[in-house]
Amino acid sequence: MGGNLGVAGSSQTRTSLISSHELKTFKRKKRRGADLFDVMGKPCWSTPLPEIQITEPPWGEDEAYDDAFAGQDQAWVTLATNDTYALGALVLGASLRKAGTSRQLAILITSTVSPAMRKLLESSFDLVQEVNPFDSEDAAHLAVLKRPELGITFTKIHCWTLTQYTKCVFLDADTLILSNCDELFQRPELSAVPDVGWPDCFNSGVFVFVPSLKTFEDLVSLADREGSYDGGDQGLLNSYFSDWATKDIARHLSFIYNMNSNAFYSYLPAFLKFGHNVKIVHFLGARKPWHYSYNLLSNHVDCDCGHYQQHLQLWWDIFMSHVQPRLSTDCAGLAGEMSKLSIRSAEELRSFPADQILGSEGRQFAWERGQIDYMGADAFANIQKKLDAAMTPSQGE
Amino acid sequence: MGGNLGVAGSSQTRTSLISSHELKTFKRKKRRGADLFDVMGKPCWSTPLPEIQITEPPWGEDEAYDDAFAGQDQAWVTLATNDTYALGALVLGASLRKAGTSRQLAILITSTVSPAMRKLLESSFDLVQEVNPFDSEDAAHLAVLKRPELGITFTKIHCWTLTQYTKCVFLDADTLILSNCDELFQRPELSAVPDVGWPDCFNSGVFVFVPSLKTFEDLVSLADREGSYDGGDQGLLNSYFSDWATKDIARHLSFIYNMNSNAFYSYLPAFLKFGHNVKIVHFLGARKPWHYSYNLLSNHVDCDCGHYQQHLQLWWDIFMSHVQPRLSTDCAGLAGEMSKLSIRSAEELRSFPADQILGSEGRQFAWERGQIDYMGADAFANIQKKLDAAMTPSQGE
Repeated sequence: MGGNLGVAGSSQTRTSLISSHELKTFKRKKRRGADLFDVMGKPCWSTPLPEIQITEPPWGEDEAYDDAFAGQDQAWVTLATNDTYALGALVLGASLRKAGTSRQLAILITSTVSPAMRKLLESSFDLVQEVNPFDSEDAAHLAVLKRPELGITFTKIHCWTLTQYTKCVFLDADTLILSNCDELFQRPELSAVPDVGWPDCFNSGVFVFVPSLKTFEDLVSLADREGSYDGGDQGLLNSYFSDWATKDIARHLSFIYNMNSNAFYSYLPAFLKFGHNVKIVHFLGARKPWHYSYNLLSNHVDCDCGHYQQHLQLWWDIFMSHVQPRLSTDCAGLAGEMSKLSIRSAEELRSFPADQILGSEGRQFAWERGQIDYMGADAFANIQKKLDAAMTPSQGE
Repeated sequence: MGGNLGVAGSSQTRTSLISSHELKTFKRKKRRGADLFDVMGKPCWSTPLPEIQITEPPWGEDEAYDDAFAGQDQAWVTLATNDTYALGALVLGASLRKAGTSRQLAILITSTVSPAMRKLLESSFDLVQEVNPFDSEDAAHLAVLKRPELGITFTKIHCWTLTQYTKCVFLDADTLILSNCDELFQRPELSAVPDVGWPDCFNSGVFVFVPSLKTFEDLVSLADREGSYDGGDQGLLNSYFSDWATKDIARHLSFIYNMNSNAFYSYLPAFLKFGHNVKIVHFLGARKPWHYSYNLLSNHVDCDCGHYQQHLQLWWDIFMSHVQPRLSTDCAGLAGEMSKLSIRSAEELRSFPADQILGSEGRQFAWERGQIDYMGADAFANIQKKLDAAMTPSQGE
């Protein structure tokens, strides 16, 4: 069950930088198998990843980076409200481990995460904290009840209740770590990257914060009083930390810590110049990495639009090597279906047309955050059928 | 020739704020003539515009705004390299005057601007400065010759040679002032707004600078040594002022001083919350305000995509009331053709189908910056023909 496809086995540490010419022509290039782990000129995935030198650090030159005090009292925090987003969280967690972080890994989950997935998360994260904003014992409860549509917002801001940590960095489950960025723990609350839609606001996909029940209660109170101008956590957090745009440049993180995966398209020259420095990619938009199709024979993800292919490929490489083999059929929806993917040997499948393995991207496109997290059972069942057929010659041709 | 269509005559000062509901439904609403000048809840165009109170100023609270020293030694600076962009500069200049600026208006032009347009610019700007980066007497000349493709870049950076001013704010000719923003002259060099494509970089459509021949020479030298990573002035200026992202929050201008006209589409909730504070709109993208069609009978601009309609409408209102009546047929390309538009009286045209007045937007779409600045002669000739026919009943029906 769940045989590893052996992607990790083909990993080779590469340190060459991608030239501008290569980037310009990336759409036309067919990537070779040996390149699977060459992402943005970063050293590839071998443990531990060497620290990448940032050419122009976004903090003051005088600030020393002494990690002597770093350790168990600080944590990366993410959130999963269903098993599908938990897939993202698992890949994110694996990418943090691979990058050699010295901090703890924590995840907030809701009761809508299946027991099987919870067990898997517990084996990957140092802390799995179930949160329930509608718990009647919760001080926030009464306030929240007046605005039930803010449930998702409140789930995220529960990160401030993790007071066992002195400082944390929140990461959305649709982010991916490209190299070690423990230096973020040196930043003050609230540090974040400008939102590309309205850069006076910060994007709440990545932010540095200091757990505090007082802050949590203040956020709940503010949400009750004024709501969130965008209906989500980003509007609420920007209202609360409303001086972010004007008070302290140290709270402005470089775009390399939360690069919109569409930046390749929005300002190509900047991407070509600065893209090799990127440390955290954020797969913004409705289409997430798990919505793309992946060719089990070539180990390539199909990317026709939206995200930068090498980032998507990296997400899938980590997923197939570190997450998929551990999935259980008891996981819900997409996660459960993905647990069934297996190939005894790529050799056995050489005669099987690769483009029939994982269907069209369109069939995987409809998974949406927090709503339906599985609409492609037929696609995966068919894949399994085709794989079974290919692997059992006696039943086939 | 060039009769005023009387748009200004219908202007009424309005101070009501646009509600979220109104903004949400703006696409479906048919705007009435009386609303033509109601833009983003700002007081409408009467001279002088009252100062708009910014709710959350992007500078320190302790900084006093004493304009006692303001005046003739500071200037707004723009650039036109052909008669079409000069149309934008004229509207921009008119918007600055309407907003009651106390600073000078300066424009850099090249020899490719027609004498007729130059004369018009001289009547609108306090200073019209022709610049020629390829002048062999110019210290920059030899360096530039090695990189002739940087001509446009060098044209813009000539703004640093305006040393008769102690401080300036550069504005691209495709920007529009919605209300007085003289407070920008309080900011240090180089102050600018994050670029929405890669917010570690600033957008060079609006920036505060201090004229200096030394800085100019350094910029020329840098361009010669390293070029510009995006082939334009933005890349060059970001390379030169490379500490912008990290050194001083005072150099980070609020997005309200250079709002991408597409922001409505990229982050609607923020636009709904903060849009009424916007002071400078930047019509980014290939399609500029002068590429849209304008209905001479209804005084409405047609906007099916790209920009926010009320900003486009304001641009055209200013153009028709303050610029078009002063255009000469000796102006080049689009500017010359636009000088011919005239209607003796809207009353005379009531029976003329409005949708036949200015043809499809598609016919005006092809004007591109710095290349061909007129491809729609047929469209405008036809308009003139139709107007003549409508205004001369004896020749018509």
